[in-house]
Amino acid sequence: MFGFYKVVKGTAFTSQSITEVAILEDYLFCLNQEGLIEKLIAPTDDIYEATLVEYQETTHYTEIPKGHFILPGFIDLHVHAPQWPQSGLALDKPLYDWLNTYTFPLEAKYGDVTFAKQVYEHLVDELLSLGTTTVLYFGTIHKKANLVLAEVCATKGQRGLVGKVVMDDPEANPDYYRDSSTEKALKDTEDFIKEIKELSKHTKQGVYPVVTPRFIPSCTEEGLRGLGDLAQKYDVHVQSHCSESDWAHQFVYDKFGQSDTHSLKEFGLLTDKSVMAHCGFLSDDDATTFRETGTAVAHCPISNAYFGNTVTRVKQLLHDFQVDVGLGTDISGGFSPSLYDNMKQAVMSSRMLNDGVDFEQAPENRGVSGSNITLNEAFYLATSGGGKALSLPIGELKEGYSWDIQVVSTEHLPIFGIETLEETFQKLIYLMKPEQIREVWVQDQLVYKQ
Amino acid sequence: MFGFYKVVKGTAFTSQSITEVAILEDYLFCLNQEGLIEKLIAPTDDIYEATLVEYQETTHYTEIPKGHFILPGFIDLHVHAPQWPQSGLALDKPLYDWLNTYTFPLEAKYGDVTFAKQVYEHLVDELLSLGTTTVLYFGTIHKKANLVLAEVCATKGQRGLVGKVVMDDPEANPDYYRDSSTEKALKDTEDFIKEIKELSKHTKQGVYPVVTPRFIPSCTEEGLRGLGDLAQKYDVHVQSHCSESDWAHQFVYDKFGQSDTHSLKEFGLLTDKSVMAHCGFLSDDDATTFRETGTAVAHCPISNAYFGNTVTRVKQLLHDFQVDVGLGTDISGGFSPSLYDNMKQAVMSSRMLNDGVDFEQAPENRGVSGSNITLNEAFYLATSGGGKALSLPIGELKEGYSWDIQVVSTEHLPIFGIETLEETFQKLIYLMKPEQIREVWVQDQLVYKQ
Ligand SMILES: [Zn+2]
Ligand SMILES: [Zn+2]
Repeated sequence: MFGFYKVVKGTAFTSQSITEVAILEDYLFCLNQEGLIEKLIAPTDDIYEATLVEYQETTHYTEIPKGHFILPGFIDLHVHAPQWPQSGLALDKPLYDWLNTYTFPLEAKYGDVTFAKQVYEHLVDELLSLGTTTVLYFGTIHKKANLVLAEVCATKGQRGLVGKVVMDDPEANPDYYRDSSTEKALKDTEDFIKEIKELSKHTKQGVYPVVTPRFIPSCTEEGLRGLGDLAQKYDVHVQSHCSESDWAHQFVYDKFGQSDTHSLKEFGLLTDKSVMAHCGFLSDDDATTFRETGTAVAHCPISNAYFGNTVTRVKQLLHDFQVDVGLGTDISGGFSPSLYDNMKQAVMSSRMLNDGVDFEQAPENRGVSGSNITLNEAFYLATSGGGKALSLPIGELKEGYSWDIQVVSTEHLPIFGIETLEETFQKLIYLMKPEQIREVWVQDQLVYKQ
Repeated sequence: MFGFYKVVKGTAFTSQSITEVAILEDYLFCLNQEGLIEKLIAPTDDIYEATLVEYQETTHYTEIPKGHFILPGFIDLHVHAPQWPQSGLALDKPLYDWLNTYTFPLEAKYGDVTFAKQVYEHLVDELLSLGTTTVLYFGTIHKKANLVLAEVCATKGQRGLVGKVVMDDPEANPDYYRDSSTEKALKDTEDFIKEIKELSKHTKQGVYPVVTPRFIPSCTEEGLRGLGDLAQKYDVHVQSHCSESDWAHQFVYDKFGQSDTHSLKEFGLLTDKSVMAHCGFLSDDDATTFRETGTAVAHCPISNAYFGNTVTRVKQLLHDFQVDVGLGTDISGGFSPSLYDNMKQAVMSSRMLNDGVDFEQAPENRGVSGSNITLNEAFYLATSGGGKALSLPIGELKEGYSWDIQVVSTEHLPIFGIETLEETFQKLIYLMKPEQIREVWVQDQLVYKQ
């Protein structure tokens, strides 16, 4: 009668604004065959009982058990897939050593597609098991290995957005790991875009090609301009790093006499489908440009504690400048593949920006008052904010959105007696252990089960 | 022939100085009947083969399987046991609301020993499962509930140090939750010390009474002085909060015209067995007093991001002032019961102190250069530093120390090919999931097995 493909009954938490989390208690989530949410039915709705009666005894009905809750799948806006083998390693080293002694030699190994497949399968499994259903990936310079990553995502059911990394400036990159020429870098990127678009046709949840200059310091101007042209020609996503650290920020100023933001804009790399990692040093003017172009920020709070030299002012970007902001793990500048960990760190880092860190400063000069974000805001970043950043209908449980969810259990949580659902939500986010994530679904496909 | 009670063969990591972690590869750990390490035998030692031959086929021999490693059990220097039910809750509230709307009403509930037992059993199980073998606990004002906490530790095999909280100033505490008089507070404390000393006689790993003024603002001078006298009379541990926040730090200055540190010292509360939580605002002079009195700092980096108003300068306390420093979760000012989480946050907070947080400041003024601690130093805090803080032979794998260990697995870790043991150590600490903690032993008693 109602014509839904599937009806799921359960209690869910989903952002309804930057600051508010809606509690959908005992809702019916009605899905269509494409795995999209066609209708949300509240217990107070007229058709609630009739819908239950129609589906309850059929194979098209699922009830989430007591003590289990539905969260939207998380969206990770910044992952260097090839760096997964060195997560947690050498983080005490300065950035230069970390890149040249560890990172670049490791990335260079992905000329070997067997190695690539082994690592990428492990990584995608890991991220899915942590509730991350959509990921914006940096690959390497290698076209074949990047294709492997996209295929692994397609096969395992993750919504992967994958970029062939461009680093074409022979002056700026080691000989053993760079594009052999600007022309080749652009051709490989264009070929890669076409191949992924082809692969996506046969992939329910979609896989997406991403134009990916590593960052301005590693690319030629011709390369950057060519990538901007490709982004426009194919209307694809764009990702890079922007104003990450004192060094990176200053480098672009010295080279072009203007900020990362304005340079990226001139190269045609800031669009509604652009996501820029870090952005700790965005000026007010840069932030305005982000809003005007629809460019989003991938905030990576764990990574920034190691390599960012500052705390990205997320609160102001969200509210004062109305920039789209989501979260990134930045594997492996950030050690943790978990967006739960990054949500918590986003809250803590924002509080440390708010209060300041040096006790010898007077309280009124120590921090930047008004910078602290709430747990609800951190949750927004990992879900709804990520969806908006990518301009995809994901990260929220509402009609027309993809059924990308985690089913999480309250087992182990310190619950003694009666709690409000709001309190349960807070404990779930703050105290979640990976083993409490019981099932993960992407566009109504089961992609992980404990 | 050798007369060991038990021989364990395995590879272990243990601090050998503040900055260095020793890798004891394929060592034999030879224990006596009391559960202490009697001898460490390296593969290069003369008696290695003979010891193996003697024990290998007996029931007194254990070999840690491949892919598993031994770490010292962790030492948590600051836990409010009664606050476990509110971990992760209401952390967006200001401290005043958090204390008065949530914390004090909750703590007041421990007049009910049935409730106390339920919570404390859950908490001790949780901490043991996370590899925490020794805990310095704040209880509540209730003598009976505190005794329950000590009994739960004794029964479950955790080395618990438990304090009856004193908050005897009628002006400073809510009527529903304070000691009814200073006299009663001191008598209850003294009775509690005697009872725990009695209980400890029948407890292999030991349980310890702790003199515990909540903090200076909640106590009368008479109460503080009386507690200092009891600490001396019974030679027991002391714990409190010291210079936690702008408010707490200033309060003591306004009341006594001197710092928390000097006030605590005058009351006889700074001894070699004293551990003070937070200490974000210790002056150079305060830090020197800590060293001179042998007082230790319980650094609680997660909690401090919420309520500390600054980052405790751990690097300087350790190296410039040679103060004993360990780690505390500060449940529930800190949301996480895991010292793994707190080790990582200690590193990140120290880096944020080092680099600063406000991008609008010039790099040279932004942070406090020289403040960043390494992963090895964070590991030291959670193990060896905690043992020194408590003046107990724990937290290191060396002769004369208690066999308090965790057996952890590398399962799930992103290991592809050959890795050094140093790299394995880094991944274990940075990427550990609770499910990788397979066994926990306290003084050679199995207290948790997955
Ligand atoms: Zn990155
Ligand atoms: Zn405390």
